[in-house]
Amino acid sequence: MKELLISLDNRRKEPLYEQIYSFIKREIQSGKIPAGEKLPSSRNLARQLAVSRSTVDLAYDQLSSEGYLESIPCKGYYAGDISALYQLDSFSQAAEPVREASKPQYLCDFDVNGIADEGFPVNAWRKLSKEVLAGAEPSLFCLGDPQGEWSLRETVASYLHHARGVSCGPDQIVVGAGNDYLLMLLSVLLGREQPIAMENPTYKSAYRCFRSLGHPVRAVPLDDAGMSPEKLEECGARIAYVMPSHQFPMGMVMPIRRRMQLLSWAADQDGRYLIEDDYDSEFRYKGKPVPALQGYDTHDRVIYLGTFSKSLAPSIRISYMVLPRKLMPFYQRTGRCFSATVSRADQKILELFMREGYFERHLNRMRALYKGRHDFLMRQLRRMQDLCTVSGENAGLHVLLSLKNGRNEREAVELAGEAGIHILGLSEYFIGEMSPEDSHTVLLGYGTLDEEQIEKGCAGLAAAWRK
Amino acid sequence: MKELLISLDNRRKEPLYEQIYSFIKREIQSGKIPAGEKLPSSRNLARQLAVSRSTVDLAYDQLSSEGYLESIPCKGYYAGDISALYQLDSFSQAAEPVREASKPQYLCDFDVNGIADEGFPVNAWRKLSKEVLAGAEPSLFCLGDPQGEWSLRETVASYLHHARGVSCGPDQIVVGAGNDYLLMLLSVLLGREQPIAMENPTYKSAYRCFRSLGHPVRAVPLDDAGMSPEKLEECGARIAYVMPSHQFPMGMVMPIRRRMQLLSWAADQDGRYLIEDDYDSEFRYKGKPVPALQGYDTHDRVIYLGTFSKSLAPSIRISYMVLPRKLMPFYQRTGRCFSATVSRADQKILELFMREGYFERHLNRMRALYKGRHDFLMRQLRRMQDLCTVSGENAGLHVLLSLKNGRNEREAVELAGEAGIHILGLSEYFIGEMSPEDSHTVLLGYGTLDEEQIEKGCAGLAAAWRK
Repeated sequence: MKELLISLDNRRKEPLYEQIYSFIKREIQSGKIPAGEKLPSSRNLARQLAVSRSTVDLAYDQLSSEGYLESIPCKGYYAGDISALYQLDSFSQAAEPVREASKPQYLCDFDVNGIADEGFPVNAWRKLSKEVLAGAEPSLFCLGDPQGEWSLRETVASYLHHARGVSCGPDQIVVGAGNDYLLMLLSVLLGREQPIAMENPTYKSAYRCFRSLGHPVRAVPLDDAGMSPEKLEECGARIAYVMPSHQFPMGMVMPIRRRMQLLSWAADQDGRYLIEDDYDSEFRYKGKPVPALQGYDTHDRVIYLGTFSKSLAPSIRISYMVLPRKLMPFYQRTGRCFSATVSRADQKILELFMREGYFERHLNRMRALYKGRHDFLMRQLRRMQDLCTVSGENAGLHVLLSLKNGRNEREAVELAGEAGIHILGLSEYFIGEMSPEDSHTVLLGYGTLDEEQIEKGCAGLAAAWRK
Repeated sequence: MKELLISLDNRRKEPLYEQIYSFIKREIQSGKIPAGEKLPSSRNLARQLAVSRSTVDLAYDQLSSEGYLESIPCKGYYAGDISALYQLDSFSQAAEPVREASKPQYLCDFDVNGIADEGFPVNAWRKLSKEVLAGAEPSLFCLGDPQGEWSLRETVASYLHHARGVSCGPDQIVVGAGNDYLLMLLSVLLGREQPIAMENPTYKSAYRCFRSLGHPVRAVPLDDAGMSPEKLEECGARIAYVMPSHQFPMGMVMPIRRRMQLLSWAADQDGRYLIEDDYDSEFRYKGKPVPALQGYDTHDRVIYLGTFSKSLAPSIRISYMVLPRKLMPFYQRTGRCFSATVSRADQKILELFMREGYFERHLNRMRALYKGRHDFLMRQLRRMQDLCTVSGENAGLHVLLSLKNGRNEREAVELAGEAGIHILGLSEYFIGEMSPEDSHTVLLGYGTLDEEQIEKGCAGLAAAWRK
């Protein structure tokens, strides 16, 4: 056992124990201290270096816990076998820089997903988050209920009861960070092998989630009232995903009789459920919103999905689902083990936002704003009657244009693109093969556009399509 | 077609169209207007009621969209078949009140999951959230990147590089709302049928998530260095979940040689991966933290899981995982369709918290706080050497007590409980059958307790166990 020639320097900011640690580490890495060689006892090394023994102990502990030393009780410290350790050098290589993918820019983007710039009530939110954090109990920072905060669930239950005709208790509500997460959770409850019947065309994002989760998806065609009950029966699925308040992308509102037909389909066999995605029911421009399917359900068969993505902001990541009482035991057994996905502070802020009337005022403001844009868009489109006819205009934040003169979707989208205008074709929303040559319909989203942009966009489309 | 005897009242706050709507709805519900009966044209009814035609149209539209009326083109409006509609009355029944389950109260709770009351940097967080919301671009409220904000991922990558020796690019990081969510996502990438090897005993919450997701779990026994490589090889799983920095619940730090053995196990066959849960690596009381297993990995086999639950707060719900480059194509194909689960504002706040040095200061403060509690607890426990010996005390927020005099876990927990002290037995963390009679070890978590509480708790335990 040779003496260690460590030179310590009190003036370096590196503490003494770390200088000892680094020296011995280098010696072992370089092989100058071979594996198995005994090191001086901490007492001896401390005496030699004229430092306190605890300083050496600290260095030895560190070296041991990283495997450079092995401590053998009653015998002492020995150099460990670190042949593999040279890979540690790879630490120093910083990760190769990778660029973030940049998004394309358009003259006008008839985006169907976004919300208005003024769509998020940032001042109220800032005020409330200040309040919540200022008055925060320590408990606000402990892990919350996996289902979400009870008081938020009470608030949501009463909102759903009054605004959507949904009848449920807070105990049936699960708050989650977005619909996709809730579909993941639902997939655990329902069983992954369960085929899911979806309207065709449908909301592709939900479709992709179901596919990724391993669910077979059965595409059920739409008639003018929505998902066809006969075709649903035929497809053999026990779970059907529908958007009765405002079908995406077609924009139709499911009439009461069709709702009843779907509910009796569900009631007809055990294990059948309807997933009602009520994603943008807040924005309806004529009269009061149509009550949710869940409210008509007397057989405990509807799983209701709601979100604040449209009514507050897509980036806020707060959604909720209402589970039928039948499914609660499944949730307790297999779902409750997944911790909450929404920050407790954010849940509290949202609760106050709803309880103190901010939400209602916000919704009315947004309804008015979007109705203004909707009506303005409709006026612009009336000038394009030679080019297209409009549908799906009673609710939501987009309309459909059916192209005239046999023009197909692909041409329409391409001509628009050449004019710097981004629109999407209906074919994108079909499950299975649907070619943009066979489709004659495009979608115009207007939630993100002010009147000036709408006017410019429509003029651009008209010019491009009249070429 | 009989005339409708509607009496409108301008003084009621209910708008006229809604009075018409409600009247006709009641008439149809009560059967006074039978299904199939034709209603007056909107022009005629408007004239009769001396209101504008659009008022009547609005009422008719609403009634149609709710299914009370059917509009037949060029013929007019007919009462719909609403036999099923009486169920709407169920709206008025508010959901029966359900109480929130209340939590038990203890004299002292040696909780192993919580953090210190002062554990969350509430002032810095409030300041930053105010900043973020005040200067918010509209884009902050649009849907963000499913992987998390690029700038946050850059910040996390550089933190991981410097603090944990993890080498990765921002493109490999996925930000998610808690580890449980990330395990869900991982399960989609790896395939649900994949058996998962877990240390036994282990972190039960992860175990339950894997089970709920449908993964077979293979329990691999621990030796004093951690998961046994031989037993891992035998169990046949290709995915192993380990906690090298601080095994939960045993509290051991995996020595370098064992890390190398596990890495070569992983490198040995295609499709083998190690999930490294680095849940509380921030809190280590002797010297610098041990570098993460991922940093030693030269074969792209380690999935690194990190969380802010311990370092900030369990309720903040921000975790992240570092995927091996090998897995990125799987993520692109099956994982990217799931939208982000953390609010974009919270991601921005966290990014600033880390970039502007708050995080480092916070960690040092907390390390000192917890080290103080740790040392104080150790001093208390030294007075109980006749009752138990301590282990797993080098890191984390809990220690293990091995009971002497043949006392088993159940007695120890029960005696403590009678004294109003909550402790957990090690048997709770075993996969498979492990009876509290056969275990002689309990866990003491001290993160949530100040010195006074620790002193009271230990005195209580000593008294209870000396009985």
